[in-house]
Amino acid sequence: MRKPPIVHGTRQAEGSHFLRVELVDLEFSNGERRTYERLKGSGLGAVIIVPMRDDDTVLLVREYGAGIDRYELGLPKGRLDQDETVEQGANRELKEEIGYGARELHILTTLSLSPAYMTSMTHVVLARDLYPERLPGDEPEELEVVEWKLSRLHELIERPDVSEGRSIAALFIAREYLAGRFRPQP
Amino acid sequence: MRKPPIVHGTRQAEGSHFLRVELVDLEFSNGERRTYERLKGSGLGAVIIVPMRDDDTVLLVREYGAGIDRYELGLPKGRLDQDETVEQGANRELKEEIGYGARELHILTTLSLSPAYMTSMTHVVLARDLYPERLPGDEPEELEVVEWKLSRLHELIERPDVSEGRSIAALFIAREYLAGRFRPQP
Repeated sequence: MRKPPIVHGTRQAEGSHFLRVELVDLEFSNGERRTYERLKGSGLGAVIIVPMRDDDTVLLVREYGAGIDRYELGLPKGRLDQDETVEQGANRELKEEIGYGARELHILTTLSLSPAYMTSMTHVVLARDLYPERLPGDEPEELEVVEWKLSRLHELIERPDVSEGRSIAALFIAREYLAGRFRPQP
Repeated sequence: MRKPPIVHGTRQAEGSHFLRVELVDLEFSNGERRTYERLKGSGLGAVIIVPMRDDDTVLLVREYGAGIDRYELGLPKGRLDQDETVEQGANRELKEEIGYGARELHILTTLSLSPAYMTSMTHVVLARDLYPERLPGDEPEELEVVEWKLSRLHELIERPDVSEGRSIAALFIAREYLAGRFRPQP
């Protein structure tokens, strides 16, 4: 197991570099008024990728999360760049994070992070027919790649280092899709 | 279908009322240094509740989300109050949002929102043996309650108003638990 990074210090910041705080004045259909706060991202959206090595084997990455201060095991993901389609962004992140590209990329659905107060939207992309190709990313260290069987998701969610809602949701959605039960909506 | 609220206006805010921005100076085991930003909540955590009317029927709520500016269908949830256990908070939110209390409450797991940049943690609580009891909440309007079958989750995730990662993850985790495949870890 890799040694976690040393936290040299934490500091308060005035504002965020990638999220803006916005106040929304609302009037509900019953006349009730509220002002709610929401966090607004760049608007380009994000991708989370379900990379399949074969019909039952998914590739996960172990990555340090500064929010939770530990390594988390989950799906590769990242923000979309300007002038990039969802499929292009998914393939780029795949090459940066796990060292594979995919010949087949398929958007399954879009997940929100917290509908109440975040505008963030993440496209779930199933990646198949993988081939080795690495792109340099901005990760501080190479990510460990872990194979897992979709037929054993119930054991994956028992692990204390598997906690991200979007990752778990995307894995179950991919499993339903591959079993022929879930049909992506246009 | 209920009419969505009117947005009278949106304004930039200097900072958030419930999240603080923190900068973390990190040194990875390979010597790489990074400063990452994270959003820090109150630290009390949140709960998301899977309220079961019977072994296959879950109660969902349709609630307006200011982050995505539309109604979202998902599980009841909320932030924990001071001096409240996870089970107490789950039962309170249940009474406020769907008008039921539960005689049986069981913590299944804890979900993170975005490990990379949010400290937020949400406890997933299975609620069974329900009885009618309503508590006044801070919701601007009464929430519509919708019954759904766990055996038909593949149809739920096809709906355009079902998008929240935590809600979808919690529903599949509850289904694995009720099928006897997933064992909550102590």
